[in-house]
Parts: sequence; structure tokens; C-alpha cells
Amino acid sequence: MRNQDLRHTLYTIIHGTDTAAGRRFDVVLLWMILLSTLTVCLESVPSYRATWSAHFRWLEWMFTVVFTLEYLLRIYSHPRPWRYIFSFYGLIDFFSVVPTFIAFFIPGFRFLMTIRVLRLLRVFRILKLTSYIENAQLITSALKASAHKITVFIMAVLSLVLIIGSVIYVVEGEENGFTSIPQSIYWAVVTITTVGYGDITPRTPLGQVISSLVMLMGYAIIAVPTGIVTVELSKLKPNKASLTPTRVCPDCGQEVKKRDNFCRNCGLKLISAKA
Amino acid sequence: MRNQDLRHTLYTIIHGTDTAAGRRFDVVLLWMILLSTLTVCLESVPSYRATWSAHFRWLEWMFTVVFTLEYLLRIYSHPRPWRYIFSFYGLIDFFSVVPTFIAFFIPGFRFLMTIRVLRLLRVFRILKLTSYIENAQLITSALKASAHKITVFIMAVLSLVLIIGSVIYVVEGEENGFTSIPQSIYWAVVTITTVGYGDITPRTPLGQVISSLVMLMGYAIIAVPTGIVTVELSKLKPNKASLTPTRVCPDCGQEVKKRDNFCRNCGLKLISAKA
Amino acid sequence: MRNQDLRHTLYTIIHGTDTAAGRRFDVVLLWMILLSTLTVCLESVPSYRATWSAHFRWLEWMFTVVFTLEYLLRIYSHPRPWRYIFSFYGLIDFFSVVPTFIAFFIPGFRFLMTIRVLRLLRVFRILKLTSYIENAQLITSALKASAHKITVFIMAVLSLVLIIGSVIYVVEGEENGFTSIPQSIYWAVVTITTVGYGDITPRTPLGQVISSLVMLMGYAIIAVPTGIVTVELSKLKPNKASLTPTRVCPDCGQEVKKRDNFCRNCGLKLISAKA
Amino acid sequence: MRNQDLRHTLYTIIHGTDTAAGRRFDVVLLWMILLSTLTVCLESVPSYRATWSAHFRWLEWMFTVVFTLEYLLRIYSHPRPWRYIFSFYGLIDFFSVVPTFIAFFIPGFRFLMTIRVLRLLRVFRILKLTSYIENAQLITSALKASAHKITVFIMAVLSLVLIIGSVIYVVEGEENGFTSIPQSIYWAVVTITTVGYGDITPRTPLGQVISSLVMLMGYAIIAVPTGIVTVELSKLKPNKASLTPTRVCPDCGQEVKKRDNFCRNCGLKLISAKA
Repeated sequence: MRNQDLRHTLYTIIHGTDTAAGRRFDVVLLWMILLSTLTVCLESVPSYRATWSAHFRWLEWMFTVVFTLEYLLRIYSHPRPWRYIFSFYGLIDFFSVVPTFIAFFIPGFRFLMTIRVLRLLRVFRILKLTSYIENAQLITSALKASAHKITVFIMAVLSLVLIIGSVIYVVEGEENGFTSIPQSIYWAVVTITTVGYGDITPRTPLGQVISSLVMLMGYAIIAVPTGIVTVELSKLKPNKASLTPTRVCPDCGQEVKKRDNFCRNCGLKLISAKA
Repeated sequence: MRNQDLRHTLYTIIHGTDTAAGRRFDVVLLWMILLSTLTVCLESVPSYRATWSAHFRWLEWMFTVVFTLEYLLRIYSHPRPWRYIFSFYGLIDFFSVVPTFIAFFIPGFRFLMTIRVLRLLRVFRILKLTSYIENAQLITSALKASAHKITVFIMAVLSLVLIIGSVIYVVEGEENGFTSIPQSIYWAVVTITTVGYGDITPRTPLGQVISSLVMLMGYAIIAVPTGIVTVELSKLKPNKASLTPTRVCPDCGQEVKKRDNFCRNCGLKLISAKA
Repeated sequence: MRNQDLRHTLYTIIHGTDTAAGRRFDVVLLWMILLSTLTVCLESVPSYRATWSAHFRWLEWMFTVVFTLEYLLRIYSHPRPWRYIFSFYGLIDFFSVVPTFIAFFIPGFRFLMTIRVLRLLRVFRILKLTSYIENAQLITSALKASAHKITVFIMAVLSLVLIIGSVIYVVEGEENGFTSIPQSIYWAVVTITTVGYGDITPRTPLGQVISSLVMLMGYAIIAVPTGIVTVELSKLKPNKASLTPTRVCPDCGQEVKKRDNFCRNCGLKLISAKA
Repeated sequence: MRNQDLRHTLYTIIHGTDTAAGRRFDVVLLWMILLSTLTVCLESVPSYRATWSAHFRWLEWMFTVVFTLEYLLRIYSHPRPWRYIFSFYGLIDFFSVVPTFIAFFIPGFRFLMTIRVLRLLRVFRILKLTSYIENAQLITSALKASAHKITVFIMAVLSLVLIIGSVIYVVEGEENGFTSIPQSIYWAVVTITTVGYGDITPRTPLGQVISSLVMLMGYAIIAVPTGIVTVELSKLKPNKASLTPTRVCPDCGQEVKKRDNFCRNCGLKLISAKA
């Protein structure tokens, strides 16, 4: 079964982080991701694009080809290809490659390649920064635990900005820059979140009184999500189990014990590191 | 008593959410509310209004007629009509219908129909999203518990912006955009809440020094409501009683046990679901 | 001792809040303070001033004469005049009257009369809103308890904005609106407090990078005072002693028990309410 | 050993704060730092520079010469010169002196002298404001304890602004002021931190919808660092050990007991105060 062996070797190199080869592969990959993101950013600057247009195009294609190849190899070497394709990292890998191909038809799409930056999330796994992973999980679980509260809150804010937007539209009117209700809702969001661009501002005395009340209200409202998250964060205990040696399931990102044979989250057979 | 029976049937359909018919009625209603709000928003966009003016007018009237009929039926079918009329939901239902009629005299009023969006609050009750209701109640009770503290705080902020507004009015003067004390108070609110539109900004060195101090003060002040709400939220225990099957009083929104005969808050006789 | 009697009667009316006459006096006073503040605000609006200039002047003088008389009577009737003059409320009463007199020489000073609004603080005492007073005391004591931490924090922020201001001044230079270091410090305060007027903004790429870093830093920094105040607020227990009937020392504002003969804070002999 | 004695005397005066002479030296130094920082600030104001250019130059040089001398004496008198040079205060002392010398070649560098202001941090040590030092240490340790969480958070925000920046760049395009992806990232940072200058704002309806979502997201996101820091701050106990008389290691700033002979952090032999 040479084919099987090849797939296993590819798996330990591409998906695994326990062997020297696997780690080297991932470090090279991270640098390529960083460079390709940087390329996209620099290409968007008009003066650079004018001068080095051809180089940028060349680099872009090279990175896309490499990432496409890598993506296909990931699918090929994975014991359960479909599982990988629809996993969190699998989807990110897919969407990092797609924009360049779509750009054949809609040129602007090219710049959405920056979604690639999400691939850098692997860095935590590769560098074995378990403390960071744990902290990220703490924050994520606090946000999840408060998701219902935050949803209620966001819905309340949405109703509020809709009503405030209509009121200010009626009060200020089109001659003062509030050209429509959607535009006025945009103003209400800008105001209540204390962003305050100043591209649309109330000019009538009544409009300014209403705005002042909205701002003071926003002042009290901003306290709510902060309070919710703080309370959830204070409830969480740090993982005590972090003392036993662990690794991360390549499939779903679940932390598993080193000696486990199957992921306790998704049931993937864990291939033990050989090199 | 055929009339009595009709009223009871109407009640279970219009006010109740326990029967299939009642739920279907509510879902249709929610979609109509959403569509009617959307209509108002789109109508306010000048380019759409220019093209589809007649259609918008027609839709608007249709929705208003339907909601008016529904409102009258709600009053007719309710066991205690006046109680419904002056209940929270009753008032919202009333104010959702009124603007179109007022718009005969003051056309701009039409756009205040967006207050209709508050009718969507029923969605929680209909979809039996008790977790969301509980969380909304948690947030509301935390805000209520801190209402006195927040009031003291808002009064302190109001005195502060009045004094800061006068000082900056004297320092900057009308030639720098601070045309009156009310205008300067508006500026003070914009600044202390960190909204910062930039439509009025200090230009004299002394004005900028005072502004900087105001901002740093606002920085410390913003901590107060957040602290208050956080402390109140952390004091609250989640409802343990949520295990017993409950329903919501159609009159006042109080959560009552399923087998209760009278609402423990407003004393309404609760009509048990039959279908 | 008729004179002594007169002073005592005046004292219970002007300083006291326990008799019907005293309460009536205070309510009239509060309305006059509100009206006089409103007068100052409206007078500052150019269009109103143009039309009713004389009326405003007349009202202003009337209020000032009344408040001056009241101030003199307060001094006359108080058992320890100097103590009153240098008490918190005494100083506010003084500064509410002074601006109109200074306005003889510097007309703009007139508008500083809005400091009068601080006299409204008495409203809590008069209306016996002990719950509000307690909550105000809770907030104040939380702020006092965290004063040292907040001071350290404000000093750190001040050093930070000085250094950031210099760096951006060197990077952006006068041609981009950063005309001097004080001006750049003003920008740094506007940015780090997330006010963001937009009257001065970075235009060079390096300046925008530095600004972005400053904003993200400000993002983390804003968490600090909030955290400090929240922790202090959560440590505080509400006053349990609030069940015993209390009144407030007219001299220093200290809450004392109703049957106390001397203020336990400043030692003022407390005159018991007779009417 | 006269030389040794001289160095010891210099040490107690320059580095120490326990003798009258040492304290006097430090107070003079603090005033000079304040004055020199003020000089730099005022020099940057165009109108002042035009009038008093020569005086500013003269003052600047005087301060630099004095601080350079002081720096050399600090090195000379310190028992372990290299340790001082690379200590926190040693580096600040170095960088306070360097800009004037660099300004020979790059004139703008002169204004970076404001880094001097960091030397004022000594004020806490000199004035024996142990309460402030303790509080500063509390805040610092809370920030340190939450450093990993904050890092995860900042990385998440950075990825987010990169992706948001690209999306808005594609949606709004160069004709609406979003001239490149780096520029759009700057906009995303300005928006998500709620600074909101308004120098670049979305103008297309889709851009405004995306911006509104970004702001509401930023609203929820701002809750995270606040929550983290609050939780860490609430975990900390105030130093109970602060009752034993302490002094601060002149080398590393570690608080040590008065009778200790060696710093428990860096091992510096502590010279006991003699005067």
C-alpha cells in the first residue's frame, strides 16, 4: 500500500504539527500567507500599482497556485476529505483561493483575498501556544454564554435606531442632509455607538436636543454589553486540565490528550506522530 | 351566547399563542409588520419615491387599514377592553396606526409609522423563546435596580454639560461656532459622550485646553454607568423557576404558571387554551 | 431677645427643610434657580437677544438681587456665619451671585451665572429623596476609593499624550495641521479618548499607522478606569443604617440622626424643627 | 579611599531619596524636567518660536548640558554602572538627552525631547507616595495578568480590520476616498474603536450598511477588553505587606524592606542611608 503510505506521510507533514517536517511546512506556509496578504495590500496603493503592476500580478498568481495545490493536497491526504472541506479551517482555505479565480470575471474581487489572513489562526496551533488558545477559548465561551443576552440587546438597539432614525428624519428633513430613513438610521447608528463621523449632523435646535438625548441614552446603553461580558468572564474558571500533555485535533480544533486515539469531539481517528 | 363564543374564539386567535390558528395569525402579523416598516423606509428614499409613489401610498393604506381592523378586533375580543387599551402592547398597537391618520394634516407624520417595529417585540412571546425573554428580563431588572444610581448620574452629567457649555461659550464665543449656550451645551454633550461629530470644535488655545480636560473627565465619567450596570448584573441570579411550564399574561406580559387561572400581576382571568 | 427669635425663625425657613414654611421657601427658590438658568441660556441665543434684550436684562437683575438678598439673609440667620460662607453650599451660593456684578467690567462673565444650576443640588435634600442621596454617596465613595488609582491612570495618560503628541508633530508636521506640540497634544487627547472630532487628522501614511496604533492602545486603555470603578462599586455595601429617621446637617451636608443635637461631622448645634 | 567616599556621597545624593540632600536634589531635578518639557512645547508654537527663537535654543542647550552631566554622574557614582545604564530609569535618562544631539543632523528630532517627561515617574519614589506606587503596581499587574487575553483580542481585532478594510475598499472604491487597502484599514480602525474622525466616510448605501454593522460589532467588541481588565482587577488583593517600612531599589524599582541588604529582585547591594 504505497499510496496509503504516501497519504499518511503527506498527512503528518501538511495537517500535523508534531514532526519536524510538519512544523517546517507550517512555518513556510505562515510566511507565504503573510507575504501574500502584504502583496494584496500594497497592490491596492495606486502609486505602487502604477509602477509594479506586472510584479504584483505575477506574485498573486504564484501564491494562488501554491495555495490551490496545498488545498488539493490537504483534501487528498485527509482521512475524511469531506469533513476537512466543511471544517472551519477547510472553509477558510477554500475562500482564500477562490477570489483570484472570481477576479477573472469581477476584477475587484481580487482584493478579497485578504480573507487569507484568517489562515494565520493556525499559528497558535503550530507554536503550541496553549495559553493563548485557552484564553481565546475563555473569551469565546464568555461571548457564547452571553450570546442570548447580546442578541436581545442588539435587537433592542436595532429597533431603537429605526425609531430614532425616523424621528430625526421627520424633524431635520432632507434639506439638512437626512435624505431618507435608511440614511437617518445610519446616522443613528453612528451616533449611538459614539463613533460620530460628523458627515451628517443635526442643524435645527430641536434636532440637536433630540441628538443630545440620544447620545446620553447611548452613554447608558453602552454600559449594558460591557456589563454582560464582564459578568460572564468573571464566572469562568481557567482550565485546570491544561497540565496533561495535549494536542489539537487537526479536524475540528478540539484540544485532546496526547495519548487519545480518537478526537472526543468529532471522533476523527488521531494518527500518532511517528517522526 | 353565540356572541360570547365568537369573542372567545377571536381572543384565542388574536391574543393567544397556544393554538395553531393563533400562532399562524401571529406569524402573518409579524411579516406584515416587517413589510410595512420596510415600505416606510423605502418610501423615504427620494429616488424610489419618485418612481413608485403610488404603490407606496397604496401599500401604506392597506397596512394601516389591516392594522386598524386588527386593533378594533383586539379591543372587541378582549375580556377587559380598557385594560388592553392602556396596556404596554395596547398603546404600541394604537400608536402604530395613528400616524397615517395624522398624516392627512401633517404629511411628515407618516414616517413615524416606524414605531410599528415595536410590535415585533411579540415575536419573543410567539416563538416561545423563553430564554430570550428571561435574558431580556434580567437586563431590564438590572437596569431598573440601577435606575436611581443612573438618574443621579444623568443629573450630574446634565449639570456638568450646562456649566461646561457656558464656560466654553464665554471662552470661544460666537465667532468660533459656539453661537449660543444651548448650542454649546450640545457641543458639551457631543464631547463628553465621546461622540465627537466635529461640526463645532474649539479653535482658541484656551478652548482646546478646556476641551482636553473635559474629554479626560468624560473618560473617567464613562466608567461610572458601566460599573453600576455591571455590579447590578453580577448580583442577579438566573431564574431557577423556569423549569415549571409557563405562559405569558396577554395583558401585562408577566410570566405566569401554565395552570394559573389569574395573572399574579394584573389579576386578569386567564383563558385556558382549548385547541 | 426678639432679634435672636427672628434669626431662629429665619434659620428654620431659609436653612431648614423640616417646617412647611421652610419647604415652601425652598420650592420657590428651586423654581427661581431653574428660571434664572433658563433666562441665561435663552439670552445667549442671538435671535432672542435681538428681540428681548431689555427683558432679559431686567430678569437677570431681578434674580441677582433676590439671590443676593437671600445670600445675605442666609449669612445673617446662620448660627456660625463663617462656617456657612466657606461650606460647600455657601461657596456655590456666592459664586451664583458674583458673575452679574463682575459683568459690569467684563460683559461675557454674565453667562457664567449658569453655575447657579449647582444650587439645584439642594433638591435632593428638600424632597427627602434619601434613596438618591444614598446612591449619590455610594457613587461618590466609589470614586473616592478609586481616586488614587484614577490619579495614577490620568498621569500615565497625560505623559502618554505628551509623547504621542510630540511624535505625531514630528511625523506629520505643520503642513498637515499639526501646527505645534500643544495642538498635537490636543489631537492626541481627542484621539485616545475616542472623541475624534476630525478637525485635525493624520494625512501621511506613517501618521495614519501611528494613529491606528494609538487608537488600538486607547481601546485597551479605556478598559482601565471602567475596571477600577466597577471593582470599587462592587465592594460597597448599601447603607443599612438608612432605616433610622435622619436629616441632613444644613452646614456640611452630613446625614445625622433626627434626634441628634449636634452634627457628628462638623459639630454644629442642630436646631430642632418646631413648626 | 577618598574617591570611594565621594562616589558614595554622590550616590546618596543623586540616586538616593533618604537624605535631605538627596531629596533636595530630586526636587530641583523634577522642576528642571518640567521646565525643559514646557520649553520644548512652547518652542513648537510658531508665533513664540518667531519671537524667542534664540532664548528657546539657549534654554534647550542648558537643560541638555545639565541632564548630560547628571547622567554621567549617575553612571560614575553607581556601584554597578552597566546595570544602571540598562535599567528602566537608565534608558529613559539616556533617551532624554540624545534627541538634542541627533538634532544636529535631523532638526525635527529636537521635539522628541518630550520623552523626558517619563523621568517624572521618579516623583512617586521621591515623594514616598507608596499608596500611588502600590496602585500603579496593582494596575500594572492586572494588565500583565490579562496580557495574553488582550494579545489574543488585539490579534483578532487586527485580522478583523484587515478583512473589513478590504471589503469596504471593494465596495466603496477609490472615488469615495477609500484610495487603498491600507487607507481602508485605517478607516476600519477609526470606526471600530469608535473614534470616528469623519475624514473618510462611506457614501454608497451598501457601504453605509456595512459600516453600521461594523459599528454595532465594535459596540459588542469594546466590551471584551473592559471585561477582561475588570475581572483581573477584581481578583487582586491589595498588598498587605505595605505596613512594614519599605524603600525602593534604585536599580530596578523593586520595593524592598528597609532593613534588607540586597535587592530581592536584582541582587543589588543596597547602601543604607547615612545622613
